[in-house]
Amino acid sequence: MTSPADASPAPTAPPAAARSGTGLARTPDGTAYWDPALYRAELELLFGRHWLCVAREEELARPGDFLTRTVGPEGLLFARDGEGRLRGFYNLCRHRGTRVVPEASGTARRTFVCPYHAWTYDLSGRLVAARHMEPREGFDRAEYGLYPIRVESRAGFVFANLDERARPLAEALGPFFDRFRRFDFAELVRGAGRTYEVEANWKVVVENFSECYHCAPVHPTLNRLTPYTTGANDLTFHPAEGRSLAAGGYLAFAGDYRSMTRNGYTERPPLPGATDDDRARVYYYVLFPNLLFSLHPDYLMIHRVWPTSPAHSRIENEFYFPRAVAAAAGFDPSDAVELWDEINRQDWAVCELAQAGAASRRWSGGPYSDREAMVRDFDEFVVEELARSSAGRPPPR
Amino acid sequence: MTSPADASPAPTAPPAAARSGTGLARTPDGTAYWDPALYRAELELLFGRHWLCVAREEELARPGDFLTRTVGPEGLLFARDGEGRLRGFYNLCRHRGTRVVPEASGTARRTFVCPYHAWTYDLSGRLVAARHMEPREGFDRAEYGLYPIRVESRAGFVFANLDERARPLAEALGPFFDRFRRFDFAELVRGAGRTYEVEANWKVVVENFSECYHCAPVHPTLNRLTPYTTGANDLTFHPAEGRSLAAGGYLAFAGDYRSMTRNGYTERPPLPGATDDDRARVYYYVLFPNLLFSLHPDYLMIHRVWPTSPAHSRIENEFYFPRAVAAAAGFDPSDAVELWDEINRQDWAVCELAQAGAASRRWSGGPYSDREAMVRDFDEFVVEELARSSAGRPPPR
Amino acid sequence: MTSPADASPAPTAPPAAARSGTGLARTPDGTAYWDPALYRAELELLFGRHWLCVAREEELARPGDFLTRTVGPEGLLFARDGEGRLRGFYNLCRHRGTRVVPEASGTARRTFVCPYHAWTYDLSGRLVAARHMEPREGFDRAEYGLYPIRVESRAGFVFANLDERARPLAEALGPFFDRFRRFDFAELVRGAGRTYEVEANWKVVVENFSECYHCAPVHPTLNRLTPYTTGANDLTFHPAEGRSLAAGGYLAFAGDYRSMTRNGYTERPPLPGATDDDRARVYYYVLFPNLLFSLHPDYLMIHRVWPTSPAHSRIENEFYFPRAVAAAAGFDPSDAVELWDEINRQDWAVCELAQAGAASRRWSGGPYSDREAMVRDFDEFVVEELARSSAGRPPPR
Repeated sequence: MTSPADASPAPTAPPAAARSGTGLARTPDGTAYWDPALYRAELELLFGRHWLCVAREEELARPGDFLTRTVGPEGLLFARDGEGRLRGFYNLCRHRGTRVVPEASGTARRTFVCPYHAWTYDLSGRLVAARHMEPREGFDRAEYGLYPIRVESRAGFVFANLDERARPLAEALGPFFDRFRRFDFAELVRGAGRTYEVEANWKVVVENFSECYHCAPVHPTLNRLTPYTTGANDLTFHPAEGRSLAAGGYLAFAGDYRSMTRNGYTERPPLPGATDDDRARVYYYVLFPNLLFSLHPDYLMIHRVWPTSPAHSRIENEFYFPRAVAAAAGFDPSDAVELWDEINRQDWAVCELAQAGAASRRWSGGPYSDREAMVRDFDEFVVEELARSSAGRPPPR
Repeated sequence: MTSPADASPAPTAPPAAARSGTGLARTPDGTAYWDPALYRAELELLFGRHWLCVAREEELARPGDFLTRTVGPEGLLFARDGEGRLRGFYNLCRHRGTRVVPEASGTARRTFVCPYHAWTYDLSGRLVAARHMEPREGFDRAEYGLYPIRVESRAGFVFANLDERARPLAEALGPFFDRFRRFDFAELVRGAGRTYEVEANWKVVVENFSECYHCAPVHPTLNRLTPYTTGANDLTFHPAEGRSLAAGGYLAFAGDYRSMTRNGYTERPPLPGATDDDRARVYYYVLFPNLLFSLHPDYLMIHRVWPTSPAHSRIENEFYFPRAVAAAAGFDPSDAVELWDEINRQDWAVCELAQAGAASRRWSGGPYSDREAMVRDFDEFVVEELARSSAGRPPPR
Repeated sequence: MTSPADASPAPTAPPAAARSGTGLARTPDGTAYWDPALYRAELELLFGRHWLCVAREEELARPGDFLTRTVGPEGLLFARDGEGRLRGFYNLCRHRGTRVVPEASGTARRTFVCPYHAWTYDLSGRLVAARHMEPREGFDRAEYGLYPIRVESRAGFVFANLDERARPLAEALGPFFDRFRRFDFAELVRGAGRTYEVEANWKVVVENFSECYHCAPVHPTLNRLTPYTTGANDLTFHPAEGRSLAAGGYLAFAGDYRSMTRNGYTERPPLPGATDDDRARVYYYVLFPNLLFSLHPDYLMIHRVWPTSPAHSRIENEFYFPRAVAAAAGFDPSDAVELWDEINRQDWAVCELAQAGAASRRWSGGPYSDREAMVRDFDEFVVEELARSSAGRPPPR
């Protein structure tokens, strides 16, 4: 993957060394990447309490559209209800816990009928039929709707939160999308995508995205198009004015290159709204905890990093284009997709080598380079969020 | 799978709600299906102390016939000895613990020779040769026979028990087989069989068999032949007069259907001894803990459900026919076997969806329907048996 | 595998029964072969503190030659440096823990460049380049060399030790190689090799090698060439004069057989230095913990047994011949290699049966035969070494 440059360490954050009280700040030791108990805590306290990007609104465009997702052991269900509202649920029949919807996605559904005993829910999650239950004393259908989860959307992205007491999405995102008001992200449509399985902890993947220190040795093509020295960070997890859940910056194209394609050029027009600066840059941000947001002159790309075990991740990589571009005859995003497939695979290879090495009993962390302020920032933010989440509140169950 | 109908809840059992002291009785939460410690306790206290159906007598018909089975981590060996007695052993050489018999089954064996160092046991488990051991002071061959396990048979079924203090099989089964005295089950022979691997806890499979509430949505063919509303339970785990280790009931054929085959008809004659009622019904019983017994007008079918991990089971499905029927030219059981293969696969699919859902942190059990008295009964019986087994006695080792 | 004969129990060792204070000494119970905590302790205290044979010197003959190995979770790197010295390191970049060298081996390398961020180490492990680190206050390249591990060689074998306080190799090996001074093992070259994956604990494999009690039933060809009754042990783990880390003995050829090939004959000359006795014997020794050393009249063979989980091992089997023999036109070691492949597979099969049986709750160990003094010796030595290692010293980290 690529990553923002870290030439300019976060100006308002105290240096890690000062925060930790020791000498040179160090990366986490192997426990962070291998310990099953820490992994479960991260699922519970990070993935169970933060807003997670799960889909695009276009995938749930019409009433009756639905899709399912898996987050750790949790099956989730999302749908557009009859009134056009987005809905989210645990994909869990209230009768026996069965996954109500086994399919990945579908359309024109009016009800969800559990495949086991045919308990039937409407698109708002209400239990509307449960054969042979009504005679039972004390059974009230109204109490047995699908367990809801919170869903909100922004910029065409659908976010879900398993924590019913979580702050609203807008507050969690902070001003992140405001800085891109000139674009109409909601209008973009999915033009391509690919899913990867990687033998590395999810944080290794986010750390990898958070620096371009590795770009020269790992990504010769990327580094030729957007040299790692051209970048700057412009958003961090620890700003003076309060928390943000996004951090990152940009790289600038060398010479007259104008697109992340194999040859650096494209016939696609810039995204509507793009300024001259935007046409000369690729912006890279982490939206905590697991959305990697990469804005190119002519397309928007994201990675969603899903933990599947302490040492494995599933990564969904998607590309969005203006509707008119994607609908045009001869639309072919392969110049972008193939380059990113190459970059992705280069990244997964080094992520897997870092994951393997971190299992050593001899490994106790290493120093951050001058170009890894954002990695340090992410690593510290994870620790703080775990502490904050576990401190104030009982577990949600 | 199919299941008895639960139209008539057990008349003598107090309702679960009364027993538990809470409102509506609830199914177990996810712990019951995922917790490794509970799984180990079930192997030790249920599968390690109850009578388990392991084979048919015909598989061990002649002296020297033998077969091996695996129950959790245990390898077991069964044989017919020279005097015609059934014998059961741990499949474990007393020298180094090696599996003495690697084969699944065989005939005409006079001794079992361990493949590692050739310690040799006779069919009654006596160590009859152990090269280079006699010189060792304190070594007496008589002390090094195969560890025996208890074996008894009934109705042609061979049962084994790993608990040397277990009550006799007849007492454990209670009057179950007495109700079928009109049949000669011992005379039946195996005509077909298939083994399945299912990603679900063994109890999910037994629960699935214990109700036909799912039959209309899951098994259209079965439900057309034997509508789920036609049934009644006639045996429960909690009778007033004392414990039984079998529970179940029957479904009745619709119209003039007379066999569980794809078209509902068969050219096979009814089993000898079948009454008019028997010719119009399919009986379904659970023999605790893991034998599913399904008596059809023209054949007897069983499933043995073997736990292989908290979330996996291996299921052996077998079909038995009168010897004369199975020996006749042109005998073809595929009309029955293919229908049941379809029903089995429909069941495993919903069992796997229920297993997956039960992993959710949000899942804390659901209410039993009017048609699931036997599921509730089984769930409660498991809890009681675990408590009873772990209370009174030290572990068997 | 084969194994020394145990006709002559170690004369100076007190019998196990006396040591244990109980009656007949017993083999370990299933815990020794299945318990994850014991497995981790063995990795830490045995494989983490003893000298391990990792390669032959010929594989690191010239400056710039290198190879990597995996020991449990540890990646290791070995190289010949510019001054011709052998070097060993954790294969672990000091920056992020990445495996510095992903390749299995290579030649003519002047530096190791980490594939992630291009930190660069010379062949002596010094960090010679680390882009963007120098500006960081408190960063001194001299403190960030590859973590070294100790490497020594003997008789052409390269040994490594993860314990920086371990005694020198010569002291650990004791007089083992002195007894073969007539041979020039260092001159031998690798002529063949094969790697096996076995579903058995590493100790099951070493125990298997430590006796030929199983040779008659398991290895008919081996036993025809070198009958198990012909052998004698001449070295044990518990000699009166102090510890040795090698134990074993020999088998003698029957009739005029003179080589472990399928027909017992060979056109290869005896190894230079071989005496008349050497030409009539195969010597088998365990070099603790995991090197199995088998000296034949015309070749030297070893097995390295690497633990990969409590119930799995990876076994590297290699064959060494005089350089002149291996370099001759028409050199074909397949007569030896194919026989040993057959013997190896016979051994892995019984090892896997022993491993499976040891999982039984009923298994609590068995008696050693008259021919298994060396197995008993090894089993007791493991227990003593674990106790000794864990007693006196803090863990190495």
